[in-house]
Amino acid sequence: MAFESKIRPIYWENGVSKMLDQTIIPYEYKYVDITDGQQMFDAIKNMIVRGAPAIGIAGAQGIVLYAIEGAKKYTDVQAFKEWLIDKAEYMSTSRPTAVNLMWACKQQKEIIQNSESDINGIIKELEEKAVEIELDDIERCKKIGDYGAEVVPKGATILTHCNAGALATGGYGTALGVVRSAYAKDNTVQVFADETRPRQQGARLTTFELAMDGIPVTLITDGMCSYFMNKGMIDMVVVGADRIAANGDSANKIGTYTVAIAAKYHNIPFYIAAPLSTIDRSIATGKEIPIEERSREEVTHINGKRICAEGINIINPGFDVTPHELIAGIITEKGILRPDYNKSIAEAFEL
Amino acid sequence: MAFESKIRPIYWENGVSKMLDQTIIPYEYKYVDITDGQQMFDAIKNMIVRGAPAIGIAGAQGIVLYAIEGAKKYTDVQAFKEWLIDKAEYMSTSRPTAVNLMWACKQQKEIIQNSESDINGIIKELEEKAVEIELDDIERCKKIGDYGAEVVPKGATILTHCNAGALATGGYGTALGVVRSAYAKDNTVQVFADETRPRQQGARLTTFELAMDGIPVTLITDGMCSYFMNKGMIDMVVVGADRIAANGDSANKIGTYTVAIAAKYHNIPFYIAAPLSTIDRSIATGKEIPIEERSREEVTHINGKRICAEGINIINPGFDVTPHELIAGIITEKGILRPDYNKSIAEAFEL
Repeated sequence: MAFESKIRPIYWENGVSKMLDQTIIPYEYKYVDITDGQQMFDAIKNMIVRGAPAIGIAGAQGIVLYAIEGAKKYTDVQAFKEWLIDKAEYMSTSRPTAVNLMWACKQQKEIIQNSESDINGIIKELEEKAVEIELDDIERCKKIGDYGAEVVPKGATILTHCNAGALATGGYGTALGVVRSAYAKDNTVQVFADETRPRQQGARLTTFELAMDGIPVTLITDGMCSYFMNKGMIDMVVVGADRIAANGDSANKIGTYTVAIAAKYHNIPFYIAAPLSTIDRSIATGKEIPIEERSREEVTHINGKRICAEGINIINPGFDVTPHELIAGIITEKGILRPDYNKSIAEAFEL
Repeated sequence: MAFESKIRPIYWENGVSKMLDQTIIPYEYKYVDITDGQQMFDAIKNMIVRGAPAIGIAGAQGIVLYAIEGAKKYTDVQAFKEWLIDKAEYMSTSRPTAVNLMWACKQQKEIIQNSESDINGIIKELEEKAVEIELDDIERCKKIGDYGAEVVPKGATILTHCNAGALATGGYGTALGVVRSAYAKDNTVQVFADETRPRQQGARLTTFELAMDGIPVTLITDGMCSYFMNKGMIDMVVVGADRIAANGDSANKIGTYTVAIAAKYHNIPFYIAAPLSTIDRSIATGKEIPIEERSREEVTHINGKRICAEGINIINPGFDVTPHELIAGIITEKGILRPDYNKSIAEAFEL
């Protein structure tokens, strides 16, 4: 039972990527036109668009934009292809942790390599694939949401960290897809949203998209989760993921691991909600997931103002890895995977 | 071995309380004059001064200020005493969680009740007691620091939450007193400071006072603690407390309980550092500690700017309670208390 969300963070229109600028939410709700490949690379890097599935879509669109540029430089198909494959590889490096970006860029690279069309034909194929990735993502999220809703108790309060919502995907969301599907069945369901320092995606984005869709949400600071768990006010945790290893270890926004430990301590089920494209079966465990180190300013400044003393050290890992033993289930478009994840993940890919 | 700290958050001079304004650190380092009782009440409530031992000192000084006012209204000693006892009780309600405030106000109340002096004599006795509480607190902190330093491993990285530093006490600090004493013995010791949302005392105050005293400090966001624990980068946790029950359950700044759970999960020792005046033997367990609910704006706004959507819910508990089973030891001026705390706390009061 799908809930209709008002939010669509990125879509393709007349050769232009229309992108909701997520750096200015909740202050402004404004789309920007992304019209060339380098601009898309920067938009991903600077988190104008963010969220693992959404940056997969953005990467696929960015390669279309490069293809349109390339068509102005090259007439020889082979030279065009070589140049464009370089650009596709470059696009896949715009952020290091989310595997959906590499997955989407790889799909476009395969089209470039295997297409027998002329340059305009290749552009058309890439464009169709980018739109397909976007629309498929929304459908996948709805399936994830519906599977997840089956394990949401009546009247549940669901804690989430960061934003794995409509804004992080083609639309609808993964973790917040579960919330939307559960709310469609039972409008006494509500959300507690972690602020998610340093970039405050929970405060800025999750509260915004849930308020916009009329779903009750309570904002808490990151350190508060255990307090509310201890009071019996949290029934389950659902978060997204940026990359999942073959054994179920899941990288997600920094702070997720702390929430997972707190959930375990209080015997509260902790779920990951993510499409299969987030699973990287080429790596055995979470130890192999590269963790992006982001800028000092994300920690030292908020809204452009310094919040701490000068002359101190900063370390700013963008993600952490929640080990599989803390995860009650991984909610995918093929159903909820349960431990042993090595087995259930392998099976899901064979379905 | 005591380290010389440059920081003194509150002291008494010529009938005036000189108070470092902690709401504007680290942007400005400025003392304000607190010249009457109501102004002191507001300064405590609005956290111009904060930290359990420091607001005990402030409360004691505030009662002296009321006594000076009362001397202008009353000539009859009995009427003066009755009025002043009301004011002392009012002062003890300026914040609800830290028991040091009630302890200090009670000491002043006993002077008012038991003194056989005239009005000026009572003022003098109250003034002496306020100064004594302040100077004793610095001495107690140095003892706490020295006892704590004994359990700090060589080259340790100490994680702390909020600010239990010189700024939170008469000077020197409780948790940061342990850091200062350890650093005086071994200058390879360093600190990781949790930002401590919502009010960011870790970012604003702890980084400031450690940088000022030349002790290496790394600022992290609250959700990051488990990431660094998992990497083996944290050797111990030391925090302050606002109230400790007879069984060792300890109330401290919101978020502390989450850090304690993460420390337990990683087998990292978690210590409380606090003077015996923080222990409230009248309550059996942490369940009886009142938790201050603070304003929504502390969560929704940073530096006056809104960080989240409109139309959402907020709950803002100022403190949480870490259960005694997560605490490796309580570092006091009488030594380090170990489980069973019911026994070790009772013994410490008999020393």
